[in-house]
Amino acid sequence: MNVLIVYAHPEPRSLNGSLLNFAVKRLEDAGHSVQVSDLYAMQWKAALDADDSVVDRLAGQRFDPSLDSRRAFEQGTQSQDIAREQEKLRWADAVILQFPLWWFSMPAILKGWVERVYACGLAYGVGEHSDTHWGDRYGEGAMAGKRAMLVVTTGGWESHYSPRGINGPINDILFPIQHGILYYPGFDVLPPMVIYHTSRIDSERYTEVCDLLGQRLDNLANTAPIPFRRQNTGEYVIPELTLRPDIAPGRSGFEAHRK
Amino acid sequence: MNVLIVYAHPEPRSLNGSLLNFAVKRLEDAGHSVQVSDLYAMQWKAALDADDSVVDRLAGQRFDPSLDSRRAFEQGTQSQDIAREQEKLRWADAVILQFPLWWFSMPAILKGWVERVYACGLAYGVGEHSDTHWGDRYGEGAMAGKRAMLVVTTGGWESHYSPRGINGPINDILFPIQHGILYYPGFDVLPPMVIYHTSRIDSERYTEVCDLLGQRLDNLANTAPIPFRRQNTGEYVIPELTLRPDIAPGRSGFEAHRK
Repeated sequence: MNVLIVYAHPEPRSLNGSLLNFAVKRLEDAGHSVQVSDLYAMQWKAALDADDSVVDRLAGQRFDPSLDSRRAFEQGTQSQDIAREQEKLRWADAVILQFPLWWFSMPAILKGWVERVYACGLAYGVGEHSDTHWGDRYGEGAMAGKRAMLVVTTGGWESHYSPRGINGPINDILFPIQHGILYYPGFDVLPPMVIYHTSRIDSERYTEVCDLLGQRLDNLANTAPIPFRRQNTGEYVIPELTLRPDIAPGRSGFEAHRK
Repeated sequence: MNVLIVYAHPEPRSLNGSLLNFAVKRLEDAGHSVQVSDLYAMQWKAALDADDSVVDRLAGQRFDPSLDSRRAFEQGTQSQDIAREQEKLRWADAVILQFPLWWFSMPAILKGWVERVYACGLAYGVGEHSDTHWGDRYGEGAMAGKRAMLVVTTGGWESHYSPRGINGPINDILFPIQHGILYYPGFDVLPPMVIYHTSRIDSERYTEVCDLLGQRLDNLANTAPIPFRRQNTGEYVIPELTLRPDIAPGRSGFEAHRK
């Protein structure tokens, strides 16, 4: 497989840096091709703005994030850094996003990768909108057939992220990423690999973590994805996009969107 | 009141830009003092990194995001842009974060404001850790006594963010921000003002939106905050930080953390 790791940590000599090196070696040893987008090393531009299109704007024209993204994507006038990352996405059979959980989401530099690389016409704003189909998204789209997985470290303890833990359940915290960023453009999303309480990792625990991560990487091709519901196959009312009354009756919230 | 608006949209001539201007005028007309951190106009540096401390690093020393943040905060060696924003937070009685919802969270540039301005020793890593108290957070902390509110625009429809809508309920999508970023360092968090389906705002609807936003701003001082549970007043087991068995029995997930 072709595996793209999009990695966001500012210090190579960190736990995240070590796990990245481990992952690349493990994947390559198993015969996979690996590319790494090391966002800090690349000095990735995080803020989506009018400079993301290399065409000069008409005088006085206002910047529209979606419309300008679509135009630049379709006309081939995106910034080179954006086009290069999109090429990596096309190349990849599997994409791993690896990052420390900062303030209950991905680091800003990675969020900015999503915002800029996920062009309108590529990751959203695609497909017909009708009474039976509301865009190619949530199970369809440009990333259909590709797999994605999060590798996430947290300072907090596992119990803090348990079903009744104060931070909220980890699967709910990651839902906007796993469902909203990965499943949306069509990825099959594998269960996340979460490493908790990273301030207390000794060499014994580090070995355990590597063993677990290694197993997850060994099974990248055959792990069952999270069974999110597809948007356009009858389970949602269109265009309201609410679950049909007979689907998951009485349930609501993030969990209702898993089969 | 002193009101700080932290604003993240790249185009002043946008709906968000208009609403910002409306909000500033409404607040000033009511006698409040207003400061705006217009992150795009400020060219805010989004990525947290070793440059955030102005002290030269010792040769070969590795960068630790938390420890270095604490040291720079305590020794007064933070970048000036960070220190200035912290000064605005100290000045403010109320903080409004205004942004378009991009990929189910805040724009990268605003996430980077949180990551860099929320220094260790200011917004986290404060207070004693014992059997009865696990840091000054979730209802305590440096922002205690201050109010905060989100003003958020979405392209998606209100039904898409309803309890059974495909994107997930808006309150759950915003939980990592409202609970994890605002309540964590002590803010009282007011219910959000969410403006849906922004591609279809005509002048009539714009007037309605301004009326609603105006009412929310008029009532900034007396709106009841979201009743999140405090961490250190007996409802959570310490240090596991799970809800005590007799609190919200049988419930789990984000909603269990609201009274």
